[in-house]
Amino acid sequence: MLESLKEQVYAANMALFDSQLVTLTWGNVSGIDPTTNHVVIKPSGVPYEKLQPSDMVVVDLSGKVIEGELNPSSDTPTHVFLYRQWQDIGGIVHTHSKWAVSFAQAGLSIPVYGTTHADTFYGEVPVARSLTQNEVETAYELNTGKTIVENFEDEARDHLAVPGILTNDHGPFTWGQDAMAAVNHAIALEAIAEMAYRTQMLNGGDNQLPSFLLDKHYYRKHGENAYYGQRRHSV
Amino acid sequence: MLESLKEQVYAANMALFDSQLVTLTWGNVSGIDPTTNHVVIKPSGVPYEKLQPSDMVVVDLSGKVIEGELNPSSDTPTHVFLYRQWQDIGGIVHTHSKWAVSFAQAGLSIPVYGTTHADTFYGEVPVARSLTQNEVETAYELNTGKTIVENFEDEARDHLAVPGILTNDHGPFTWGQDAMAAVNHAIALEAIAEMAYRTQMLNGGDNQLPSFLLDKHYYRKHGENAYYGQRRHSV
Amino acid sequence: MLESLKEQVYAANMALFDSQLVTLTWGNVSGIDPTTNHVVIKPSGVPYEKLQPSDMVVVDLSGKVIEGELNPSSDTPTHVFLYRQWQDIGGIVHTHSKWAVSFAQAGLSIPVYGTTHADTFYGEVPVARSLTQNEVETAYELNTGKTIVENFEDEARDHLAVPGILTNDHGPFTWGQDAMAAVNHAIALEAIAEMAYRTQMLNGGDNQLPSFLLDKHYYRKHGENAYYGQRRHSV
Amino acid sequence: MLESLKEQVYAANMALFDSQLVTLTWGNVSGIDPTTNHVVIKPSGVPYEKLQPSDMVVVDLSGKVIEGELNPSSDTPTHVFLYRQWQDIGGIVHTHSKWAVSFAQAGLSIPVYGTTHADTFYGEVPVARSLTQNEVETAYELNTGKTIVENFEDEARDHLAVPGILTNDHGPFTWGQDAMAAVNHAIALEAIAEMAYRTQMLNGGDNQLPSFLLDKHYYRKHGENAYYGQRRHSV
Repeated sequence: MLESLKEQVYAANMALFDSQLVTLTWGNVSGIDPTTNHVVIKPSGVPYEKLQPSDMVVVDLSGKVIEGELNPSSDTPTHVFLYRQWQDIGGIVHTHSKWAVSFAQAGLSIPVYGTTHADTFYGEVPVARSLTQNEVETAYELNTGKTIVENFEDEARDHLAVPGILTNDHGPFTWGQDAMAAVNHAIALEAIAEMAYRTQMLNGGDNQLPSFLLDKHYYRKHGENAYYGQRRHSV
Repeated sequence: MLESLKEQVYAANMALFDSQLVTLTWGNVSGIDPTTNHVVIKPSGVPYEKLQPSDMVVVDLSGKVIEGELNPSSDTPTHVFLYRQWQDIGGIVHTHSKWAVSFAQAGLSIPVYGTTHADTFYGEVPVARSLTQNEVETAYELNTGKTIVENFEDEARDHLAVPGILTNDHGPFTWGQDAMAAVNHAIALEAIAEMAYRTQMLNGGDNQLPSFLLDKHYYRKHGENAYYGQRRHSV
Repeated sequence: MLESLKEQVYAANMALFDSQLVTLTWGNVSGIDPTTNHVVIKPSGVPYEKLQPSDMVVVDLSGKVIEGELNPSSDTPTHVFLYRQWQDIGGIVHTHSKWAVSFAQAGLSIPVYGTTHADTFYGEVPVARSLTQNEVETAYELNTGKTIVENFEDEARDHLAVPGILTNDHGPFTWGQDAMAAVNHAIALEAIAEMAYRTQMLNGGDNQLPSFLLDKHYYRKHGENAYYGQRRHSV
Repeated sequence: MLESLKEQVYAANMALFDSQLVTLTWGNVSGIDPTTNHVVIKPSGVPYEKLQPSDMVVVDLSGKVIEGELNPSSDTPTHVFLYRQWQDIGGIVHTHSKWAVSFAQAGLSIPVYGTTHADTFYGEVPVARSLTQNEVETAYELNTGKTIVENFEDEARDHLAVPGILTNDHGPFTWGQDAMAAVNHAIALEAIAEMAYRTQMLNGGDNQLPSFLLDKHYYRKHGENAYYGQRRHSV
């Protein structure tokens, strides 16, 4: 079942690996089937070099394994919580990509320093709050998902306009309309983090992008009046 | 039409991609045909891995599409403005290469710290002024081109001797006698930015190159008395 | 003899090389045969491109060559000392990988800044004390091993829970249940060092991981109740 | 003539390129034939991808072209001056490798922070003094060579024990017993510069290697009592 989605999620996992955002087995991609609400996700701890489409694990929205011989990613409870909360996303990526993790470990969000950021993220890439000891010890991966959604709700942040976050002390999660879109957001986030780091080192980070330039770049790529790329928009 | 130029511009786009200056689809190269004043440019948002010479788009100097089924780069108005102003250039490159963007986001020009810089750029690589809200909202890409030319005019800077600039909060544009020369200038700029960053971190950037050494290195590669490379100069 | 172990140690040396942790010939991997207590180690100074399984050198626990035409790694006395002291390890790696060496040269241990670190190292990656002039001049490589073990003993550190150290002014040693596990620890250490460096630059390094999060991440991958990966644990 | 040396110098140039120390055409390798004192050197400004052994240029010790259809490297006067002064070297490399250039542009030598440095360079990698305006304008490349030799003479530095230098505001030169040895020294220098930069950022660079550890590491690889590698020493 879900063979086509397995192929997609497998291809997205390999695209993540090929983009050099992954060290060893640190990272996972999932995708959801909107008809069954079943989620296809990378198995836990399997080297990318040996991964096959048939290794993908199918779980339901509670995280229970529906199909597959391998354990799903240990981050599965985070993935399925996000799918339960945000029914308009189709894919999720988690990595330990080095530039994004550097900000996560410092407990710092990534401000909008330039148009590259604005092209993909309509506002800062936030850092979620730290989990409490109780949250870590009881249902760590689920609670990680809860701090993500909490951040977007508390700040009235649009999760489609800002398709990623840094979990505190941990690393980035990104999402998108499908698994490959989430991978592209992970790649964009890593590049943005790298440039933001250097911008901060060069000038202390005191020149954030004016909001009209954020609007311009975001909306030339997204929404009804977008004119970047090859999509034709019917208005 | 312009098949040879399409091949050149395609090859230059792929050289840019192979040089690792491009993340995802962020970057574009164009070239101009001096007879027709038609410009060949990369289509917008097409992945480099799938790009074909026949995908190149032909536009006139107003930016109107003359030939091609795809939308041209969203930065086309910047390209054609530069071609209209500077009739002695044959190719233009725009990237979001990470070291150059780091300076652009910091709003800092790149001083001449060494002979590597002087070999390609006869003076600092400037950062253009920020655009006003009105400039961004009315004709953003055209006005980006205007701030570039304004910078060279205000500073009486020679655009052939300094074949590149950082647009503020955005990223680099470079140009040259043809598309491949513009790509080589983009590669040089990225390396120069990387080294300038570290030079500033090591010593605060207080040892700029003396002008006689700038002259020496620039003119041993450029102009009538150049003796670098394989060109024979008739004096 | 030990043909299978030679193949393993050869493969681990090549995996180290492929992971880009090695410049020129700087690095070596060994493995021990638990039956004979013979150690298989890379020959000294041989380029990785030319390395063959049959080039691996067999030494006993005193470091004496038992088999092989080439000189063993000059770091052999460090390796065999560690095997003598820690009979529960099966492989050792030494590299001059650049991020880990940067900390070693600065005489700094790598604090636990994030969960990536906690996934592999249960606590800081320590830096061993400097050797005295007498220790350097008499039995340098042996004494290097002694400062490693001394560090773990003085701090009551568990060498299986923290499978690596930085030797002062020199570089990292890692170990594991076999040669490939030690290579994976070397790869993890290098990534951790890279991220720790940037974390310190971003915020001065004042947000170390709380102990409950260290526990969570370490024990979800290690020990009886681990649930990362594909191992089934019988409790 | 000198076909074997041309092959060697070509192979060394390509090894330099493959080691990623070269951007565009910035770098050159030469080798000398001890019988004829003829020097084989890379042609100026030729892309490495198109380089052939037969493109190598033969010059005499005054820099005059003896054989070859292409212009020799514009840095030829530096190379031949070094060969004239130091008759015990067989190969020379010049690059604009980015970490070494960063120190050169900052006007800073590279202190001995660790054993990796000590393995190849017996002491700091110095930065040559700046050239005067007159030296630049009259015989720039020759005078570059003179500042190199002057540095070693003034400091009573042994050019075989410290096989490289940073020319001020410019970049590194390294040398060795043959062209490939000089390339290996350039690779080592770049790695050392990268680690030294980070060591300085981490701790301000206040822990240089004690001289007894410098001695230990240098002499375990070099000289009569060396025991690194596969060479057997007759004492």
